[in-house]
Amino acid sequence: MASRRETIFKLSGIFMLLLALSMVPSLLAALYYRETTSITTFLSVITPLFLAGGVLYQLTREVEIRIKMRYGFLIVSLAWLTFSLVGALPLFLSGAIPNYVDAFFETCSGFSTTGATILTDIESLPKSMLFWRSFTHWLGGMGIIVFITAILPSTGVEGQLIASAETPGPTMDKLTPKYSDTARNLYLLYLGITLVEIVLLMIGGLNLYDALVHSFGTVGTGGFSSYAENIGHFTSPFVIWVFIVFMIMCGVNFNLYFVMFRQGIRQMFKDSELRWYFGFIFVPAALIAVTLIATGTAKSIYAAVTDALFHVAAMITTTGYGTVDFTEWPTFAQMLLFFLFFVGASTSSTGGGIKVLRIMICLKLIRRGIKHKIHPNMVQTIKVNDRPVSQEVATNIANFIFFYIVIVIISSLLIGINGFDLVTTVSSVLTCIGNVGPGFALIGPADNFSIFSGFSKAILAILMIAGRLELFTFFMLFSKHYWNPDKM
Amino acid sequence: MASRRETIFKLSGIFMLLLALSMVPSLLAALYYRETTSITTFLSVITPLFLAGGVLYQLTREVEIRIKMRYGFLIVSLAWLTFSLVGALPLFLSGAIPNYVDAFFETCSGFSTTGATILTDIESLPKSMLFWRSFTHWLGGMGIIVFITAILPSTGVEGQLIASAETPGPTMDKLTPKYSDTARNLYLLYLGITLVEIVLLMIGGLNLYDALVHSFGTVGTGGFSSYAENIGHFTSPFVIWVFIVFMIMCGVNFNLYFVMFRQGIRQMFKDSELRWYFGFIFVPAALIAVTLIATGTAKSIYAAVTDALFHVAAMITTTGYGTVDFTEWPTFAQMLLFFLFFVGASTSSTGGGIKVLRIMICLKLIRRGIKHKIHPNMVQTIKVNDRPVSQEVATNIANFIFFYIVIVIISSLLIGINGFDLVTTVSSVLTCIGNVGPGFALIGPADNFSIFSGFSKAILAILMIAGRLELFTFFMLFSKHYWNPDKM
Repeated sequence: MASRRETIFKLSGIFMLLLALSMVPSLLAALYYRETTSITTFLSVITPLFLAGGVLYQLTREVEIRIKMRYGFLIVSLAWLTFSLVGALPLFLSGAIPNYVDAFFETCSGFSTTGATILTDIESLPKSMLFWRSFTHWLGGMGIIVFITAILPSTGVEGQLIASAETPGPTMDKLTPKYSDTARNLYLLYLGITLVEIVLLMIGGLNLYDALVHSFGTVGTGGFSSYAENIGHFTSPFVIWVFIVFMIMCGVNFNLYFVMFRQGIRQMFKDSELRWYFGFIFVPAALIAVTLIATGTAKSIYAAVTDALFHVAAMITTTGYGTVDFTEWPTFAQMLLFFLFFVGASTSSTGGGIKVLRIMICLKLIRRGIKHKIHPNMVQTIKVNDRPVSQEVATNIANFIFFYIVIVIISSLLIGINGFDLVTTVSSVLTCIGNVGPGFALIGPADNFSIFSGFSKAILAILMIAGRLELFTFFMLFSKHYWNPDKM
Repeated sequence: MASRRETIFKLSGIFMLLLALSMVPSLLAALYYRETTSITTFLSVITPLFLAGGVLYQLTREVEIRIKMRYGFLIVSLAWLTFSLVGALPLFLSGAIPNYVDAFFETCSGFSTTGATILTDIESLPKSMLFWRSFTHWLGGMGIIVFITAILPSTGVEGQLIASAETPGPTMDKLTPKYSDTARNLYLLYLGITLVEIVLLMIGGLNLYDALVHSFGTVGTGGFSSYAENIGHFTSPFVIWVFIVFMIMCGVNFNLYFVMFRQGIRQMFKDSELRWYFGFIFVPAALIAVTLIATGTAKSIYAAVTDALFHVAAMITTTGYGTVDFTEWPTFAQMLLFFLFFVGASTSSTGGGIKVLRIMICLKLIRRGIKHKIHPNMVQTIKVNDRPVSQEVATNIANFIFFYIVIVIISSLLIGINGFDLVTTVSSVLTCIGNVGPGFALIGPADNFSIFSGFSKAILAILMIAGRLELFTFFMLFSKHYWNPDKM
């Protein structure tokens, strides 16, 4: 059994090596574009990480570590914090983002796949830095930890526990008996989807760089673009539809793709969450399209349908890409988008938010509540996919949603100190905790988060990580019970 | 056993007589102030109600009716709707409010003790009409139905079931073995508090009319005033503090006053909800006072403390009185008030909203959730006043809060069609469902609800009633299960 020190050394070593490795593609981009400052910066960050990480890893090579469930939460949270803190260094040291808190915000936004930016002039940044910024989305996408779980088992660390703390959503269906196989399958699927999108975007006329950057943003459901106009930069209808389709695809429970491969698409669509997910996309999109047509906001019916579907998909999958400034839409349409902030994508997808499954069970709880008031003596069970949902799962979901709301309220009060209007304040919190990206009022798709104070930016950055880690994983660490497990 | 027709006749008769009776004080006010139009109007409404009600009641005098639990909900909802629909007639027929939907909105706002108004020039209305408007607060205050339960038992209708559908809040402590005694005690207490406030306000320099109107608004936690400036009309610090104290008193669980009478004030303060209620008042009030002082918004420290405490009390008790326009306060202070919209007063008080007890149990659920994540195998119980809260009650509370949120979202979308900004739209829904009164942005304390379309006003009016009846009582009637109880 490894000692605590050995465990910490080994994990730190692995984190460092992974961080160093993750920056190599950006270094290559810097070399390709001959960006001298970027080359120096990446080298000065990668080299010490690689050396220190290598030494730590070598020292603990023979150490077999087993991690208690409780520490899994700590490691996951520390991983995200560390990656964001260290990942901010290239942006900060190269002078691309001269303020460290800003660079930390931007990197948290990247790794948490939020896509909120503090950059006022995106296009002035070196291409390799924008590449790194978008690459963090891709890394964050499936969850750095699912990424790590595919590797850690072979290095002697049990991945299962970390993954159960990390994998988005209330349930985790096991697809293959061995967990590391599942992780590998998911990872390969993720890679596959990315490659297909890159190819399609290039067919649509994008160069390799743009195709890479924007595929990272889509597949990770992030939302960073290398253009100030975001996806509005691209005019090809084919490209827009590639984005729409891939955003929607990445908000689907990834496990369902394996169901599709093995049992066909009809079996896949028997999943309740999937059907609700599509309901949450197509009903609001239709309502928004009608509103845009009725009010003459969109130039044509085609534009109305595309704009509506694009932005509904961008919101619900928490990607946050944009083609137009929806803060100029009629209130009703904005309101629909605003409430989609609360929904989020499917469980086990790369999207954030509360997640469709939770919302679905929550609505079923309400229906049961009404039935129960009418027939107080009847026992009612909630079912998902014809299987009963245990009271414990229902309670967990209720807890999660309450906790979400409480965190939103407390954070909004803290951001409120900044003095911006209610909509800016509350939407900044919702968009960060839900990993969406843009907000409303002063932080719409055409604006950015540079208006906030350093204090507010730090809170919002932490919220992104907390939201990405499904709140409890992160906030648990602030509970005295976590640190004093015996003193219950 | 009475037939369905006899039951309906008897109940309608009682409703009509009660309505006729409830308008008599306003008729007296009209006579006193020699308002000819008002006298004619009240007589033309009271006379047919009295005659028809009298005939129906005489016809069914001997009929003993027993009401099934299920129909209790229907009767309670119909009572509130009927009282609002008929109660709007004097305002409409006299021309005081020339549009019937407006008059309905105003009366719903009265009976539901909301206090939101569509009047743009309050002071132009006849005094007897303003008296009627405020008197509906007082009638609605303890709940028309608690009022009716004190009378119905003696008329042969079982009151218990109706009351359990009506009484605000998740629990109803029985204080005396016979239910009608409890109702009578509560009613006398309500009357007593009103009389004491009237006397104190008159000592503070108000004339009888003003003292009556503003006591109705306080004790019913309504918020209507006969002045455009609302409580800002009064400058005496004594009067302001009378309002603060009485608002806070009326947000307390009325049953606790009996505890105080019998077992002393210390025993009263052992109640968890009461302590949380005071926490929800004094902590936000202190934060707001500090903000008002720090930003120089208030003229003096005394003004800051008074303004903060007054408006926090007005929000949490859902009275909605105002002395200043808080929409001009710093965002942080506004935000605190905004979130108090979600809290509401204590259970079994005259206040509306979600209620402190529910919020309290919800926060305890979150804490249990965190503990449970850390120690998955430990059984944790939630306690209130050292008594365990059953899983069923916890589930009911979770259901209620979810349902509240879902109704807020759907209603906001419907109000959103009006095209006002997000804050106006969402706050209009929150203030109406929570029975508060003023909202934010375009419907702040200095503004009114006349800006909304008839459609929006109708929705908001229905929300007030639904909120007042704790949602399920009202919305249950829209469930197909309610009407087809056998087809489960």
